[in-house]
Amino acid sequence: MKNICIVGVGLIGGSFALDIKQQHTSCTIYGIDKNKAHLDDAMSLGIIDKKSNFEELDKADLVIIAIPVDATLEVLPKVLDKISDEAIVFDVGSTKEDICLKVQSHPKRRNFLAAHPIAGTEYSGPKAAIRGLYKNKTNIICEVEETAFKLQEKALKLFSDLGMRIRYMNPKAHDKHIAYVSHLSHISSFMLGKTVIDKEKNERDIFDMAGSGFESTVRLAKSSPAMWTPIFKQNKTNVIETLDEYITNLKHFKELMENGDFEAVYKEMETTNHIKDILNGIK
Amino acid sequence: MKNICIVGVGLIGGSFALDIKQQHTSCTIYGIDKNKAHLDDAMSLGIIDKKSNFEELDKADLVIIAIPVDATLEVLPKVLDKISDEAIVFDVGSTKEDICLKVQSHPKRRNFLAAHPIAGTEYSGPKAAIRGLYKNKTNIICEVEETAFKLQEKALKLFSDLGMRIRYMNPKAHDKHIAYVSHLSHISSFMLGKTVIDKEKNERDIFDMAGSGFESTVRLAKSSPAMWTPIFKQNKTNVIETLDEYITNLKHFKELMENGDFEAVYKEMETTNHIKDILNGIK
Repeated sequence: MKNICIVGVGLIGGSFALDIKQQHTSCTIYGIDKNKAHLDDAMSLGIIDKKSNFEELDKADLVIIAIPVDATLEVLPKVLDKISDEAIVFDVGSTKEDICLKVQSHPKRRNFLAAHPIAGTEYSGPKAAIRGLYKNKTNIICEVEETAFKLQEKALKLFSDLGMRIRYMNPKAHDKHIAYVSHLSHISSFMLGKTVIDKEKNERDIFDMAGSGFESTVRLAKSSPAMWTPIFKQNKTNVIETLDEYITNLKHFKELMENGDFEAVYKEMETTNHIKDILNGIK
Repeated sequence: MKNICIVGVGLIGGSFALDIKQQHTSCTIYGIDKNKAHLDDAMSLGIIDKKSNFEELDKADLVIIAIPVDATLEVLPKVLDKISDEAIVFDVGSTKEDICLKVQSHPKRRNFLAAHPIAGTEYSGPKAAIRGLYKNKTNIICEVEETAFKLQEKALKLFSDLGMRIRYMNPKAHDKHIAYVSHLSHISSFMLGKTVIDKEKNERDIFDMAGSGFESTVRLAKSSPAMWTPIFKQNKTNVIETLDEYITNLKHFKELMENGDFEAVYKEMETTNHIKDILNGIK
């Protein structure tokens, strides 16, 4: 790979650029971003070698699309229109069904790989990009059979070099599972933050009393609304279903408390403690 | 201080013992615990010097009560009955109102300091005890005026040596604020874990898809039900109030999604992003 183009030079795209640059020292990394300040930052941080634009995409061997999922729906077909027959394009979006649908009949569908690297932090923008973000992380690939085999190989080699493990799923199953495991976590965290902020008019109290417990639980409430709003929009049905179940579980817990049934409260927690073993499986 | 007794040699009591031992090398640390295996562990880990019992409490200069809050209600009066006039006793419970009420008329009330160090991890037991747990953490002291001045001084010197900052509150205010900032975080985390476990029959899917987001948000769901059930019981009214508000906020978010009002969804998150600044205040 000689010419790599990153569309969206933020946390996710920028971190890919940093790792790829380290492994392929002779390649040139081009950056495209509608945010000019981010492009400037990406240049000065050494994330990209050159600012670029859609007209230059025909030179790219690899294009990574790392922008909000609503923008991906617009940009991906345009990128596929421009690239050469040998180029591979992958996206990194947290929703997969709409994106796969959008390009299912595109003449260059076989140049596209639908990917979702399960990695990130609560920060965003090129300044948040870090080396090694993808090491030991899972990358979920959807509709792998729709991508040309030689181009699959190229992308999988790259993911493997970055230390990622691969898992294959269909887009529908991806969107359903990820609603539980990722999207719901973000909403629970945002609403926890809101509940506490609304109550604690005197912020000094939050500072002083928020031990490590609150801090970690509310961490995701720092996440970017510009990134998350389109995700919730695209995965609306699944996310609403998870919210229904979460609210039902919270109401049930509250009822047990109201009824003074603290044996049942204990059991609710004891059963869920099993999450320890599940999370140990992640390591 | 020569003789220090830790009642409950788990994460919280054990971590106090480790730090105190490091600073007061000539003191002897006695341990009392109804769990014999924990006492053995505390001995072999060097957390305590000697196993002890209530009969020996009259020798203690300092007693730390670090057991579940329901047990504290039973144990604290008995400890106060036994200690000498010069000894200081403090508890570390996550609720303060019931504990302060319980001993308000005890003849040794002035030997007791009601404390809540905002520190801990999701683990428990002596093996979870760590050095430096209290460094830069807040310790909330309630009804400080009820403790004899000389004994206050002794305890405050100890907290200061361990690197803690002190904040004074009345027990009612403590229990109300802590319900939002700590107790609600635990329930939101437990119910998030439950919702995901209920759904994901195939645990492999949780392993693979749970990026750092889910893991941190669900961390508190590893916490001990034996510790948390009595906390929720003692702080029932406040906790139910926080749950009501949390559920209302989640329902509102869901309604915005159902109505397709994603501008409002964006605004909900943008407003709550302010939590960044609040959490920066903690550092």
